[in-house]
Amino acid sequence: MRFFSHAALTALLLSLAATAFSADEDGYDLWLRYRPLERAAQQRIQVRSIVLPGAPSPTTDAALAELNKGLSGMTGRAPASAARISDGALLLATPARLPELAAAASPLRTELAALGDEGYLLRQARIQGRNVTLIAANSDIGLLYGAFAWLRETAAPAASRALAVSSAPKLQLRLLNHWDNLDRTVERGYAGQSIWDWWALPDIKDQRYTDYARANASLGINGTVLNNVNSKPEVLTAPFIAKAAAVADVLRPYGIKVYLSARFSTPLELHETATADPLAPEVQQWWRAKADEIYQAIPDFGGFLVKANSEGQPGPQDYHRTHADGANMLAAAVAPHKGIVMWRAFVYAPKGAHLADDRAKQAYEEFKPLDGKFAANVLVQVKNGAIDFQPREPFHPLFGAMPKTPLMMEFQITKEYLGYSTDLAYLGAMFEETLESDTKAAGTVAQTLSGMAGVANIGSDRNWAGSHFDQANWYAYGRLAWNPQAKSRDIAAEWAALTFSPDQRVAAPIVDMLMMSRETVVDYMTPLGLHHLMGTSHHHGPAPWVDNLERPDWNPVYYHRADRNGIGFNRTATGSSALQQYAPEIARQYADPRTTPEQLLLWFHHLPWDYAMPSGRTLWAELLARYDKGVAGTKSLHARWVVLKPLIDARRYTEVEQRLARQINNAILWRDASIAYFQSVSGLPLPPGVQAPAHPLSYYKALSYPYAPGRG
Amino acid sequence: MRFFSHAALTALLLSLAATAFSADEDGYDLWLRYRPLERAAQQRIQVRSIVLPGAPSPTTDAALAELNKGLSGMTGRAPASAARISDGALLLATPARLPELAAAASPLRTELAALGDEGYLLRQARIQGRNVTLIAANSDIGLLYGAFAWLRETAAPAASRALAVSSAPKLQLRLLNHWDNLDRTVERGYAGQSIWDWWALPDIKDQRYTDYARANASLGINGTVLNNVNSKPEVLTAPFIAKAAAVADVLRPYGIKVYLSARFSTPLELHETATADPLAPEVQQWWRAKADEIYQAIPDFGGFLVKANSEGQPGPQDYHRTHADGANMLAAAVAPHKGIVMWRAFVYAPKGAHLADDRAKQAYEEFKPLDGKFAANVLVQVKNGAIDFQPREPFHPLFGAMPKTPLMMEFQITKEYLGYSTDLAYLGAMFEETLESDTKAAGTVAQTLSGMAGVANIGSDRNWAGSHFDQANWYAYGRLAWNPQAKSRDIAAEWAALTFSPDQRVAAPIVDMLMMSRETVVDYMTPLGLHHLMGTSHHHGPAPWVDNLERPDWNPVYYHRADRNGIGFNRTATGSSALQQYAPEIARQYADPRTTPEQLLLWFHHLPWDYAMPSGRTLWAELLARYDKGVAGTKSLHARWVVLKPLIDARRYTEVEQRLARQINNAILWRDASIAYFQSVSGLPLPPGVQAPAHPLSYYKALSYPYAPGRG
Repeated sequence: MRFFSHAALTALLLSLAATAFSADEDGYDLWLRYRPLERAAQQRIQVRSIVLPGAPSPTTDAALAELNKGLSGMTGRAPASAARISDGALLLATPARLPELAAAASPLRTELAALGDEGYLLRQARIQGRNVTLIAANSDIGLLYGAFAWLRETAAPAASRALAVSSAPKLQLRLLNHWDNLDRTVERGYAGQSIWDWWALPDIKDQRYTDYARANASLGINGTVLNNVNSKPEVLTAPFIAKAAAVADVLRPYGIKVYLSARFSTPLELHETATADPLAPEVQQWWRAKADEIYQAIPDFGGFLVKANSEGQPGPQDYHRTHADGANMLAAAVAPHKGIVMWRAFVYAPKGAHLADDRAKQAYEEFKPLDGKFAANVLVQVKNGAIDFQPREPFHPLFGAMPKTPLMMEFQITKEYLGYSTDLAYLGAMFEETLESDTKAAGTVAQTLSGMAGVANIGSDRNWAGSHFDQANWYAYGRLAWNPQAKSRDIAAEWAALTFSPDQRVAAPIVDMLMMSRETVVDYMTPLGLHHLMGTSHHHGPAPWVDNLERPDWNPVYYHRADRNGIGFNRTATGSSALQQYAPEIARQYADPRTTPEQLLLWFHHLPWDYAMPSGRTLWAELLARYDKGVAGTKSLHARWVVLKPLIDARRYTEVEQRLARQINNAILWRDASIAYFQSVSGLPLPPGVQAPAHPLSYYKALSYPYAPGRG
Repeated sequence: MRFFSHAALTALLLSLAATAFSADEDGYDLWLRYRPLERAAQQRIQVRSIVLPGAPSPTTDAALAELNKGLSGMTGRAPASAARISDGALLLATPARLPELAAAASPLRTELAALGDEGYLLRQARIQGRNVTLIAANSDIGLLYGAFAWLRETAAPAASRALAVSSAPKLQLRLLNHWDNLDRTVERGYAGQSIWDWWALPDIKDQRYTDYARANASLGINGTVLNNVNSKPEVLTAPFIAKAAAVADVLRPYGIKVYLSARFSTPLELHETATADPLAPEVQQWWRAKADEIYQAIPDFGGFLVKANSEGQPGPQDYHRTHADGANMLAAAVAPHKGIVMWRAFVYAPKGAHLADDRAKQAYEEFKPLDGKFAANVLVQVKNGAIDFQPREPFHPLFGAMPKTPLMMEFQITKEYLGYSTDLAYLGAMFEETLESDTKAAGTVAQTLSGMAGVANIGSDRNWAGSHFDQANWYAYGRLAWNPQAKSRDIAAEWAALTFSPDQRVAAPIVDMLMMSRETVVDYMTPLGLHHLMGTSHHHGPAPWVDNLERPDWNPVYYHRADRNGIGFNRTATGSSALQQYAPEIARQYADPRTTPEQLLLWFHHLPWDYAMPSGRTLWAELLARYDKGVAGTKSLHARWVVLKPLIDARRYTEVEQRLARQINNAILWRDASIAYFQSVSGLPLPPGVQAPAHPLSYYKALSYPYAPGRG
């Protein structure tokens, strides 16, 4: 008979666990994997007990459950909960729970005071004469955020070994927007169905709702809009309010408020009013009563998100009222309950109406004059750029231009225009680029914000995001919503360590892949400031030739304006003058192509094909070189992944590899089709060394993508 | 330092594993869970090595992988593969692999010879002087089936301890039909999206495809139609053929052939022919070339399933040709490749055309005259009953009526009319009822069959079927397709033991729940032979009052025919005469309500409300009693489950409990709405002791179910 020591047994158990995990990771656990740590890392964890002074709450229950889950996973055992503070305790405390923290003499008192309702600090501390690991906050939700932060530090320790973290969110509103329909289709969703199973609710509450709450709370996301901005009246009927309330009950302990997208014409369409005019008393009364009804079911309901008078949605302009009239009417209904209204600035002229000469200008033209006219509980939600979530856009000119109105940033986490969930594109880099842009009017874009909304990439797919790497975009969005000045590379490093391995042989190359990925997509899809060249409706694949859609501004040719002489959209004073919507300093700088950032060149300028680029190449040659660079980038991504095979669990390795291989083909398709088309327009020969497209232009024009996903 | 013995360690590991499993079962593993066995059961497994003589094939690789997975899970260790037969070997052998089996002296030779290509036997045997556990078959796929059977026997041993199983399928064609659309919606699907991710294919092959193949092979299912019978032309274009081929590559080692639903007008709609007339040479040529193209990509392609001239689908009748003309044209295209055509008999008069007096009669009237006119590789696929997958229907009169035509049974595993994936209804009992029905013309229905098709209830939900108990319907379908004379209770017992626990404290009450569940649904939805009373289009909830749909035979009032005097559909000679489509003996018996089975009474007879039932009650009182019995049944199901809580893992316990609680409410809704309506028609008072509906009829009529699932 053989014998095993306790240590050997533990090691064996952990290695078995590790083997099982590595053989079969499916991505469901996201960045909350809590896989067994290396022995040395385990030994650094000095937690012998967990102590929560005072009465538990649903939120502290969630924090303790997470700490248990995390420590069990990472060390093979969960420390007992204890009532008394002893050496080695992991202590969760607020000033209310532990009067020492509120004592004048406490060195932590001031620090805590600065952290607000949601902040937390992590510290090795001496409390009641004992050496403890302290998670301190002013509220239970701060403790939950702190617990997640401590687990993150433990699973993927920063270089510095001293535990001295203190953190508070810079934005009060950190939301996900689900473009999820009530039939569980998801507009621009590439990760399966909506996780909200409206049919099964309220009786059946999927385990996913809890895991969704955990994942979001781990990032500090504190609100979620459950349904699509292209909303339906039924979502505000009693059965659906009860369903939303059931979701709210699950999310509440995690500090996440539920919001709903409201269709402006709801009372009219439900035949409960004769109009939806925001100034009609019966309409105002209907919305007040509706708000009361909702708050009866969901006492902490967040409020409404509204897409009005845009892309066919109803709105106040149908009654010759302004966006402010509409928003303020709804705001009055939710104000008694401390609710808010998020009113989207993504508008463009209705079908059939007179089109502005440049769609990029419309939001600014409609909203800028309304600055100061919105009620106090209205926020205007502005997309990062003035067109529509392109691989690259300059920041939206409304940022910095509405000083009297709280603004929310709307980012799109789901990759409508950046390769769905099949192509790898790390959006952290893109979000950062927008957030750190200097408005030259009110600081950086980040500094103009009161909140942030991310159009979710979450679905029923086992890995939540449709691909493993797309989880990084959810993660990066959440971390940037907490701190819009964070660096996308740091976030990438954190994510890679948590999601794959803290082993730098794994994490470092993955960070490199992430950081190069978005620019790679820009290169093979829309280099040098080109935009909106994607296939009609599904937005997959290249279609720069499309010129026959009902609205001029749906056509790629409207945006690239390529002809025999040149390419690009002139938005200077000699063109659409959209540039004038920016602060004068920017407008001056960008008025000259020589001082316009190369990456935005054709966004602002129409230039001749032989325009001399800084590289010394002509614009034509530079454009071709960018496409080639994009293709090379996808090959590089694939090659970087393939060498990681021995270090990555088999399932995730394969799932990523298949996507990266497909991305190479997608990049080649974009390159070849774009070159074939632009050559047909420019009439220019390909410079020596540039490979001709594999097929004639007619081949690319004939490609179609029936049943492409994401149409909702 | 403490020490553990090897045995103690093993026990600890298993208990840890068991703990982990019991805490977190999500249903993905279906009946292939391979959880640790009790110690005594483990010790009975005498496997010390696994031996496969001869060269491995993809199919034997699958068998060995499954045995490894199963034994690792159940015993904590996987026996090594060995080249030589020794005592304790688990030996997988065919006569070709092990000449002893083909030897004249072998006692197994005759037995094997009778098992055909797909059968297998399991035996404790002495081979080459060694005591082995033998899995023997005539082919590698037989070995795979045998491996699954041995694992089943091991995980949930039958009462008899001697291993003496020999089994061969009674039907050659055992198929699933996916009503899955190319956009991943599923018509009548209640388990998420289609598992077939057409967009990601062929590059990205989901792990689910392999697990789907394993689950189906474990039941002996040997074919799958990937797409909806309401088909689209695109599925037969090159990109989709490549996608289907990628799926076929995954399924092939598991003995599962891929089939496609073909839209009859495909060449016309693709603008590749000027007509879809099956007698037009260009059409015949197109389909021949298309078949050649498909077989180039999928050499073992199974063939086509066709829904023609039914519910708006195109078909040969559009050109004044018969179903046989259409089927035979397609059959000629696939015949050179040994493909088949499955032609559905579910037809009813096209919109606008003259309606038969009884929709139940149409399939028989159209198909019976064609008996003998179909090509040899055509099968006619007939739904179990003449209307449409109702909770109870008499068997379809075509069974036994087409002696010259091979028939396939079409069952619906997904519960379009039996409560989606929210209500519990074990369909094994329903399938068995049909299969064992005596046609009085050609034996039982089972004996008339050449194959079986089940409309799948499989989707992207983690538990595959939308609920844990709906997995039993997939299981029962598969086991009955293998042996249509199997008993649904035996199958339920096997499923419960494998899916929950072989512990009879768990399995026995679950079997009781399963066996009572379908009759419970019949009672609260459509008692005494009533049918087609469900809500329009989505088929959820009661709507017996609906009388205003475009087609008479879409209206529930068409089917129940209730008025002040009575209720029921007279299908005797004084009514629609549909009864005459059955064999004379049945027609005679059912012509009289006194000799008609009570459960089919109102299917065949219109009877006065005061008709005296065998119970002594009037028909009116009996009807009310059945609704009450249905409600009581759902309460009983819930109560039986609740007491199992200590014995069921937490997650599955909760997920089932939530559904059973909801089912009670659904039953009450059905009861109350039905009683309120039928009382409004009959004008009769409720007998003493019968509770009045909770709401007036107007309340039930006003209920609506927007965004109900399954509309595809």
